[in-house]
Amino acid sequence: MTAVRPADPERLWSTLQAMAALSEPGPGVTRLAYTPLERAAHARFAEWMAEAGCEIAVDPAGNTVATRPGRSAGPAAGTGSHLDSVYNGGRFDGIAGTMAAVEAARLLHEAGVETELPLRFVAFAGEEGARFGQACCGSKLAAGLSSRDELDVRRDRDGVSLAEAMAAVGLDPDLAARTAWAAEDWSAFVELHVEQGSVLERAKLDIGVVDLISGSTRIELTVTGQASHTGGTPMRGRADALAAAAEAVLLAEQVALDPRHRGTRATVGRLSVQPGSITTIPGRVTFSLDVRDVDADRQRHSAAEIVTRMRAACLRRGTRLEARLLADTSAVVLPDWVRNEVTAAAADRGLPYRVLTSGASHDAQMVNRLVPTAMIFVPSRHGLSHVPEEWTEPAQLAVGTDLLLAALLRLDARAAAVAGILENAGGAP
Amino acid sequence: MTAVRPADPERLWSTLQAMAALSEPGPGVTRLAYTPLERAAHARFAEWMAEAGCEIAVDPAGNTVATRPGRSAGPAAGTGSHLDSVYNGGRFDGIAGTMAAVEAARLLHEAGVETELPLRFVAFAGEEGARFGQACCGSKLAAGLSSRDELDVRRDRDGVSLAEAMAAVGLDPDLAARTAWAAEDWSAFVELHVEQGSVLERAKLDIGVVDLISGSTRIELTVTGQASHTGGTPMRGRADALAAAAEAVLLAEQVALDPRHRGTRATVGRLSVQPGSITTIPGRVTFSLDVRDVDADRQRHSAAEIVTRMRAACLRRGTRLEARLLADTSAVVLPDWVRNEVTAAAADRGLPYRVLTSGASHDAQMVNRLVPTAMIFVPSRHGLSHVPEEWTEPAQLAVGTDLLLAALLRLDARAAAVAGILENAGGAP
Repeated sequence: MTAVRPADPERLWSTLQAMAALSEPGPGVTRLAYTPLERAAHARFAEWMAEAGCEIAVDPAGNTVATRPGRSAGPAAGTGSHLDSVYNGGRFDGIAGTMAAVEAARLLHEAGVETELPLRFVAFAGEEGARFGQACCGSKLAAGLSSRDELDVRRDRDGVSLAEAMAAVGLDPDLAARTAWAAEDWSAFVELHVEQGSVLERAKLDIGVVDLISGSTRIELTVTGQASHTGGTPMRGRADALAAAAEAVLLAEQVALDPRHRGTRATVGRLSVQPGSITTIPGRVTFSLDVRDVDADRQRHSAAEIVTRMRAACLRRGTRLEARLLADTSAVVLPDWVRNEVTAAAADRGLPYRVLTSGASHDAQMVNRLVPTAMIFVPSRHGLSHVPEEWTEPAQLAVGTDLLLAALLRLDARAAAVAGILENAGGAP
Repeated sequence: MTAVRPADPERLWSTLQAMAALSEPGPGVTRLAYTPLERAAHARFAEWMAEAGCEIAVDPAGNTVATRPGRSAGPAAGTGSHLDSVYNGGRFDGIAGTMAAVEAARLLHEAGVETELPLRFVAFAGEEGARFGQACCGSKLAAGLSSRDELDVRRDRDGVSLAEAMAAVGLDPDLAARTAWAAEDWSAFVELHVEQGSVLERAKLDIGVVDLISGSTRIELTVTGQASHTGGTPMRGRADALAAAAEAVLLAEQVALDPRHRGTRATVGRLSVQPGSITTIPGRVTFSLDVRDVDADRQRHSAAEIVTRMRAACLRRGTRLEARLLADTSAVVLPDWVRNEVTAAAADRGLPYRVLTSGASHDAQMVNRLVPTAMIFVPSRHGLSHVPEEWTEPAQLAVGTDLLLAALLRLDARAAAVAGILENAGGAP
C-alpha cells in the first residue's frame, strides 16, 4: 500500500465529459430518468467501478451499487449521487458526485488501501423530477419509501408511467416497489453535489457542508377561461385564461418576496397555452408551481396562500382555477454526527468550509431515512444549475473529492471502532 | 324557370356537417391551411358546384372558382369564403359563407334561373393565420398582393414554409406567386361570414352589413432571462423569463383597456416556455401579440406602446425583449355602393339589419383590392369563434343565404345595365 494520491482534476474532467456525451441532441445534457441513455450511463459507471476493484450490483429500482470489500464484512460507509439530468441540463448536477465516487474508488485502488469495513459507491436512478414530477425515484425506492401505486400514477409529458418507463429499460416495477436496502448494511452515507446556488462562490470557498435540505411542494394548476376570436371579442367581457395565468405567475413571485414568507422560493417553470393560436384568446392554461422552503410549515402556508390568491384573481377575471398536488416533501435535517466527521476531515486538511442549507432536493434526503447521511457541496459558477452553462472548476471538484474520501475513511474507522466496542461489550446478540 | 325557393336550413346544416367531418382528431375542427384535409374540402366544394351546373377551375394559389355562365359573357358578380380552420376551431368560420355559396348555386340551378352575366362562387385557400402567421394567403395571392419571397419566409410551428406546404399538396409556389385575377372579369363581390362577435346577438338581428374591417399588427416577442435551479436560486436576483412575460401579457391588456386606446384589442394567444421544467426557472419565453383596430394609426401606436412598455418591464427584471413583426395590415373601408346594393336587397325583403365593423380579417379585404366588395354577417352565438362551440342557427344562415343571393342578382342586373349603358354610349373601345 502506498499513500493515497490527491484527486486528479484532469481525470475527473474526462470522466465528466464521457458522461456528457451520453445525451439526447440539443443544448446541454438531456439524459432523463429511466431512459436507455440513463441506463447506458449506469453501465459505464459499473464498468469503471469494476476496473477499480469493486463488485457490481444493480438493485430492482435501477440503482447501481459498487462494493469495495474491506478487511471485515460489516456495515459500509457509502457515497454516490445520480446520473440522470433535466431537459437541457448541465454536466455536473448529480454527475459531479458520481464521478467523485469513481475517482475516490480509483485512488483507493491505485494506492492499494484496505479499509476496515466495505465501502460502497452508488449511482442512483431517476433523481430529477423533470420527467415524472417526482424527484429521487431510485433513492426513494432504495429507502423503502415508494409504493407500487406511485409508479403507476406518475406520468411523463407523453403519458408514459414511471412503471412503464422502468419496464421499457428492463426493470421490473413490481420488484422495484419492493426494493429496500437493509439499514444494517450501512454505517453512514456522504453525497457530494454541486451547490446549485452562489453562496460558496460569493464566499470564495471550495467546500460547503449541508445541514438542512429544503422541502418542495409541487402543484399543477389549470386556468379555464373562454377561447374566442381575438378580433371579434372586445377587451371587456373576455375570460382570457392566459391573462389570468399571467396574474397568477406574478402572484407566486409576490408572495415569495413578501417578508412574511422570507426564505420561501416559488417558481412557475412550465406553462402551456390552449389552443395556442395567434388569433384565438387562450381558453385554457396549465402551469406548474414549485414552492421550496427549509421550514416545512412556512412552505405549505406559502403554497396555500399563493393558490388562494391565484384562485381569487382567476375568479375576478371570470376564469376558473383548478389545483392538483403533484408532490409534497418537508425539509430534512441531516444528523450532526456524520456532518461532524466531514467537518473534522476538512479541519484536518486545513480546508475552510461553510455550513449551509440546500435549496434543491437530493438523494441524500431519501438515503438519510435509512442511513445517517451528510452532504458536501462544491461551487456552482454564478449559481447556475439545470442549464447547459452549469460549471464547477475541475480543481474544485478535486478538492471536494479529496474531502469526500477522507470523510469516508474516517467514517470507516469510526464504524470499525463502534463494531469493536460492541464486540468487546459482549458480542453480537 | 320557376321561382327561386328560400334557402333550406336542413340542407345547409348537412353540407356544414359534411365539411366538419374533414378534420384532424381532437376537439372541434382542425383543417389547417395548405394541408391535404383542406384540399379534400376544396374537392368536395368543387363536386357540389359541378352538380349545380358550374364550371370548376382551381387557380395556382389553390383557390377553387366555380363559374355559372350567364346569358352573356362579361364581368361576374361573385361570392365565397374559405374552407380552412384554426387549430380546434368551429364548423362555421369561413365554411358558413362557402356553404351559403353552395346553397345559392343549388337554388339557382333548381329554379333554372339564367342571369345576365356569369356568377362566380369561390372557396379561398389558406385564410386563417393560425398555421403560418399570415391571414388570407389565397385571396392575397388572387389579388396579386403576395410575393414569392413571402411564401418562403412564412413558416409554421414545425418550420415548414408556406411554399413547401403548397408544393406538398401539389401546388406550384412559383406559379402561385404570379396568380392574379383579372379585375375586368369581376363586377362585385359579396362575402357572407359569421360575425365572431356578439353585436347581432345582443341586437336580436339576423343580418349585419360590414362597413369597415379591422387591421391587425402581429408581433412575435422573445424574452431572454437566465434559466437556473428553482431551489438553489433565491428570489432576489432572478432573471425569470416567464415572470417578465407575465408582466408583458398584462401590459398588453392594460394598454388596450386604457381609454386613450379605446377600440384597440390586444391579445397574447400563443406562449411557450423554455426549458419548461418544473424545477428550472424559465430562461426564455416566446409569445405572440395580436393588435387590432379599425383605426390604422391607433393600431400602430397601441402596438408600439405595448412593446415599449414590455421592453421596459423586461429590462427592470434583468431580462431582454426582442420583437419581430409577423404581419401588419391596416383597416379596410369597403365601398358603399356594393354595401348599398346589399342593404337595398335587405330592405326589399323587409329584413332588419345593422351596419357594423368587423374585428376579424377576411378574404373580403384582399378581394376588395381587386373588385368592389361587401360583407354580410350572420350571428355567432355568445360571440364565440375559433372554438369548437362556435354556433350559428341554420335558420339564420338560411336568412343570410337568401339575402346573399338577392344581392348577387341585384349586382348582376346592375352590371348588365352598366354594360348596356357603356354599349349604348358608343361600344367598347
